[in-house]
Amino acid sequence: MTQELKIGLVSISDRASSGVYQDAGLPALLDWFSRTLSSPWQSVARLIPDEQPLIEATLVELADREGCHLILTTGGTGPAARDVTPEATLAVAHKVLPGFGEQMRAVSLRYVPTAILSRQVGVVRGQCLILNLPGQPKAIKETLDGVFAAVPYCIDLIGGPYIETGPETIAAFRPKSAQRPS
Amino acid sequence: MTQELKIGLVSISDRASSGVYQDAGLPALLDWFSRTLSSPWQSVARLIPDEQPLIEATLVELADREGCHLILTTGGTGPAARDVTPEATLAVAHKVLPGFGEQMRAVSLRYVPTAILSRQVGVVRGQCLILNLPGQPKAIKETLDGVFAAVPYCIDLIGGPYIETGPETIAAFRPKSAQRPS
Amino acid sequence: MTQELKIGLVSISDRASSGVYQDAGLPALLDWFSRTLSSPWQSVARLIPDEQPLIEATLVELADREGCHLILTTGGTGPAARDVTPEATLAVAHKVLPGFGEQMRAVSLRYVPTAILSRQVGVVRGQCLILNLPGQPKAIKETLDGVFAAVPYCIDLIGGPYIETGPETIAAFRPKSAQRPS
Repeated sequence: MTQELKIGLVSISDRASSGVYQDAGLPALLDWFSRTLSSPWQSVARLIPDEQPLIEATLVELADREGCHLILTTGGTGPAARDVTPEATLAVAHKVLPGFGEQMRAVSLRYVPTAILSRQVGVVRGQCLILNLPGQPKAIKETLDGVFAAVPYCIDLIGGPYIETGPETIAAFRPKSAQRPS
Repeated sequence: MTQELKIGLVSISDRASSGVYQDAGLPALLDWFSRTLSSPWQSVARLIPDEQPLIEATLVELADREGCHLILTTGGTGPAARDVTPEATLAVAHKVLPGFGEQMRAVSLRYVPTAILSRQVGVVRGQCLILNLPGQPKAIKETLDGVFAAVPYCIDLIGGPYIETGPETIAAFRPKSAQRPS
Repeated sequence: MTQELKIGLVSISDRASSGVYQDAGLPALLDWFSRTLSSPWQSVARLIPDEQPLIEATLVELADREGCHLILTTGGTGPAARDVTPEATLAVAHKVLPGFGEQMRAVSLRYVPTAILSRQVGVVRGQCLILNLPGQPKAIKETLDGVFAAVPYCIDLIGGPYIETGPETIAAFRPKSAQRPS
């Protein structure tokens, strides 16, 4: 029996969390995972303002108490003073995986030169992989499409469930020795 | 009325600052900005040796007291013992923007394999963007050409003036919502 | 007379160091350097488990007491809890060269999407360049092929011997002013 993947989704925005406008990040993330995963999963969502202590507490709660294997944040990765998502993520990290930030920026650069300004990081905390994504639904899809092939094997390596993806979506990549018969 | 952009230019070299040879970094930078910017700007320049405390003090003076919105350093980014520009820049940073270093190296790699050795970084201090550039005039031009499209929007986001570039140079890129009618 | 290059080779693996399987990293490294270098060199090798204090002590011994100009580690760069090679390398670093990690990941990405997960770094300690490589012989060759052109000039800059490579292997790249007549 396959263990269910638990995904934490955290939308970080002063204006969306105070109701000034409708959050678009959480629906974009739910839509993307619904299309991509073929193995069982559930999600838990949070919508919070750009406050570093609150972001850190939310990530810790989702990883340590909720038992999420994967957390996606959206928003708060730019150069403005209120953008503190990467700082909060690094503050709760056990290991930093620089390849995720590099590759997400490289992918976004194919679309906009200002992708350079995104400071997003990928880290491991315990048995949970945390990835910062941009705030715009279009950019969320582009960056997840660009890096997700490596996520299932990463979650294997940190002790999480074996994730499978649908045949017409992102092909999960694993070395042969780590593949299970389907 | 458009606020004038204030640019700090810092050439960092033991030999140029002691008169052993003529500094080529500051003229290359002035030339590049003269060709590129169409909105009003002024510059303030410094020529200093590779001493970390002095580099830090110079960056702080230009950002905090001179009110520069953008600082470009040239020189001191290699692996040699006297190369300490990135360390000084990180020491005065409020936010690090890893995309600038990544992209400047990726651009330089199209020209020379030793671009890997450059440790240049981009950071924000208050309302000032600080970028480390290489020391050679040719490499200064190549890296500025490669990343400058993202600089005007970055300066918007940290609270600086609205920069415009000439029609036949680097096209400043901004999302539609951030563009002003010209 | 050319000074001899001294290379430290460190294979980091719980299972290989305890005899569960045969180490393949050190033979792959020796083979690669035998094919590549045409100037005189010698090597010193270590096979150790994934213990951060032991990795740090081994790197310090090879750099400071054995006088290695170049150290290559293999293994321990992934996201798993026992993978601590990058942490140990950063702990003994005097300078970090982010371009090596970026470029090794970019090169490996041409072969496997999970290259994103490698956390390998390049650093300088005193007059020694330390590079983390992946564990698999195939990936060792791919990443060394991808970045070695910049290594000889880096070793020049930190005060080591002048390295030369064979005519049909990796061409060492140096600016003209740093080239010696052959």
